[in-house]
Amino acid sequence: MPLNNLDYITAAQKIAFAPFEFQAAKALVETGIMKYLRKNKWSAISQISKHLKLSNYGVTVLIEAGVAMDMILVNNKNYALSKTGMFFICDKMTELNFQFTDRVCYKGLEHLGESIRKGKPDGLTVFGEWTTIYEALKDLPDNTRRSWFNFDHFYSDQAFPEAMPIVFKCNPKNILDIGGNTGRWAIECLGYSDTVRVVIADHEGQLKDAERNLSKMDLLERVSFYQVDFLKGWGEKLPKGFDVIWMSQFLCCFSEEEIQRILHEAKGSLGKTSRLFILDTFLDKQKNTVAEYILRMTSLYFSCFANGNSKVYHSSTIKNCIKRAGLSVIKETNHIGLGHTLLECITSD
Amino acid sequence: MPLNNLDYITAAQKIAFAPFEFQAAKALVETGIMKYLRKNKWSAISQISKHLKLSNYGVTVLIEAGVAMDMILVNNKNYALSKTGMFFICDKMTELNFQFTDRVCYKGLEHLGESIRKGKPDGLTVFGEWTTIYEALKDLPDNTRRSWFNFDHFYSDQAFPEAMPIVFKCNPKNILDIGGNTGRWAIECLGYSDTVRVVIADHEGQLKDAERNLSKMDLLERVSFYQVDFLKGWGEKLPKGFDVIWMSQFLCCFSEEEIQRILHEAKGSLGKTSRLFILDTFLDKQKNTVAEYILRMTSLYFSCFANGNSKVYHSSTIKNCIKRAGLSVIKETNHIGLGHTLLECITSD
Repeated sequence: MPLNNLDYITAAQKIAFAPFEFQAAKALVETGIMKYLRKNKWSAISQISKHLKLSNYGVTVLIEAGVAMDMILVNNKNYALSKTGMFFICDKMTELNFQFTDRVCYKGLEHLGESIRKGKPDGLTVFGEWTTIYEALKDLPDNTRRSWFNFDHFYSDQAFPEAMPIVFKCNPKNILDIGGNTGRWAIECLGYSDTVRVVIADHEGQLKDAERNLSKMDLLERVSFYQVDFLKGWGEKLPKGFDVIWMSQFLCCFSEEEIQRILHEAKGSLGKTSRLFILDTFLDKQKNTVAEYILRMTSLYFSCFANGNSKVYHSSTIKNCIKRAGLSVIKETNHIGLGHTLLECITSD
Repeated sequence: MPLNNLDYITAAQKIAFAPFEFQAAKALVETGIMKYLRKNKWSAISQISKHLKLSNYGVTVLIEAGVAMDMILVNNKNYALSKTGMFFICDKMTELNFQFTDRVCYKGLEHLGESIRKGKPDGLTVFGEWTTIYEALKDLPDNTRRSWFNFDHFYSDQAFPEAMPIVFKCNPKNILDIGGNTGRWAIECLGYSDTVRVVIADHEGQLKDAERNLSKMDLLERVSFYQVDFLKGWGEKLPKGFDVIWMSQFLCCFSEEEIQRILHEAKGSLGKTSRLFILDTFLDKQKNTVAEYILRMTSLYFSCFANGNSKVYHSSTIKNCIKRAGLSVIKETNHIGLGHTLLECITSD
C-alpha cells in the first residue's frame, strides 16, 4: 500500500516526540510493566497496577503511550506485548543499544549540533573535560562506562571467533593489537594458540583494564602492554617486527586524515611477509537495513562523544586510505559476526 | 505486505536510538541543511558543506542519519528532502511539537519514570522547585515559556473560532473563563460580542500576561481578573451568577478526583439557565491516528511536567465526572479545530 500524507505526518511526529517514546519505553521497562505483560498476556490496567504497586493513573499513561508506539497491543481494555515490544525486552542487541543511548548518550546528545559545528565531541562535556572519550573512559561513571563497554564488546564478541582462523592461517608468532581495549582479542588469541605472543597498544586506562582481565585468567606470560595516544602520532616509537598487526573497531575512531597517517605508520612496522588485519563495520557492507540503521546512528555517537571527527565509514573510504598508505588489500571477508568486514593487507612494495 | 521479524527489530532499534533521531533532526534543521535541500533538490555533500560553511564530515554524518530516518532521499550521492522531511520543516504543527519537546521536555523527560512512581511532575525539577508547571510558567526560561505557550495556543487557536457561535447561541451577558491563561479566549469573546463581560480566573503569572495582552488591544473595560490556585479548592470564593462558565484545555490539567471536585464547585456557580462549556481533547474522539498519537505523547508531558497526575482523557472518564457532579451534557460537538470536543452542560436538578 503506498504511503499517504498522513503516514508522512505521523513519521514527522515520531521524530518530534522521539524523546517521549524513548523515556516511555524506559519507564515501561523499569516499572516492570513490560515484563509483567510478557508473563501475563492480555492483562487489565488494574491487575498490572496492583501487582506492581503503581497507580492506575501511572500504568494507564505509560500503557497508552506504549500502544501509540506499537510496543503494546490492546484488545477490549486488556493489554499484551506486541512483537516490537517482545524484541525490545528479549533481544540482547536492542537492550545494549538502548542502555548505551540511555547511560552514555541521552544528556550529551543535546550537544550534537555544536559537536558538528566545532568538530569536537561536545557531548562529552556532560561528563567532564576531555579531548576524546578514549582518554575519558577510565573516569566515566561506572554505569556509563559499563554500558559503553557492553555496547562495544557486544559487536566485536560476535566477530572475533570467526576472524580467528583467518588471522591465524599465516601462523603468526607475534601480534600487535592496536587499540586493544580491555584485552578481549588478546585473550581470544592466547587461547587459540599456545605459542603466540601479543602486545596490546592503547591508552593507560584501557591497558589497566586489559592487564587486570588477563591477570584474572593467568594469561600475563605471553602478553605485554604498550601505552600510546594514537592522536599524538607514533613515529619512531611504534614497535616493529610483528607478523600480524591487528586493528579491530579501531579506524572508525579517527578522521580520514588520521587514518591515513596511522596506516602509514603501521606500514613502517610491517615486514615483507607481515599482515595488517583491519576488522571494522562499513555502511555499504551490511546484509540488512537494521544493521545499516544502527551504524548510521552510531556515527552520530562518534561526532558527539568519541572525538568529533570520525564515523562508521563506507568501505571505499578506508580502502582509499589503505592504498594511499602504500598497502594492498589481498583478502576481504564480509558478514563476519553481526556485520563486520575483515580486510587482510600487505605492503605494496 | 505483512511485517517480518526484521521490521519489528527495526522498530525496536528506532526506539532504542530515538534520542539520536531527535537530535540529528534538530542539527539538520539548525545547521540549515534541511532548508538548503528544500531549495536545492539533489545536492552533493560538497555543495551543501561549502554553502553552509560546514565540514564535509559533519554534513556527511548528519545526512547519513537523515537518510536512515527517512527524512532525506539519496540518489547517486545526491540528496533531497523526503516527504517526511518536507513535513518536518514546513508543517507548523510539527515545528511546534518539535520545539515543545526540545525546549520544554528533553532534559526533564529523564525523570518520567520517577514522576510516574511518585505521582509528581519530577521533570519540572530541571527548571526549579514547584508543585505544578502552572505556578512555574512565569519563571521558566523565555525560550521554554514561549514554546510552552506556542504549543498550548496552537491547538486552542484552531478551535476557538468554531466554538464561538455555539457558546454565544445562548447570548451570554457574562462569562467566567476558568483557566483563562493568557487571555486568548477572552479576546475572542470581547471581539465577538460588543456587550459580553468576561472574568478570567487563573494563576498570578497567567493573569499578568492576560492583563498585558488585553491592555495592548485596549480591551480591559469589559474584563476582570480573579486569582486562584485551582488545586487549593475554591469553596466560597468561586464567583457566581454567570451565564456561561468556560473551561478550555483545562480539565486535562487535573486528576480525576480533582476534576470531580472542580466540576462540583463549578456547579455551585451555575444558575438554572447557565451553561458550563468544556472544550477539550479526548483520546477516543480523534479523526485520525496522528492526532491520537500526539495526545498519547502529550499525556506523558502531564505526568512528567504539568502536575504528575493528569492526562488527555477518554471522553467517558470526563462524562462520568460530569454526571457524578450533578451535571448533564446537553450537547456534544466533535472535531472542532484539530481534534477538540465541546461539551455543553447544565445542572441536572
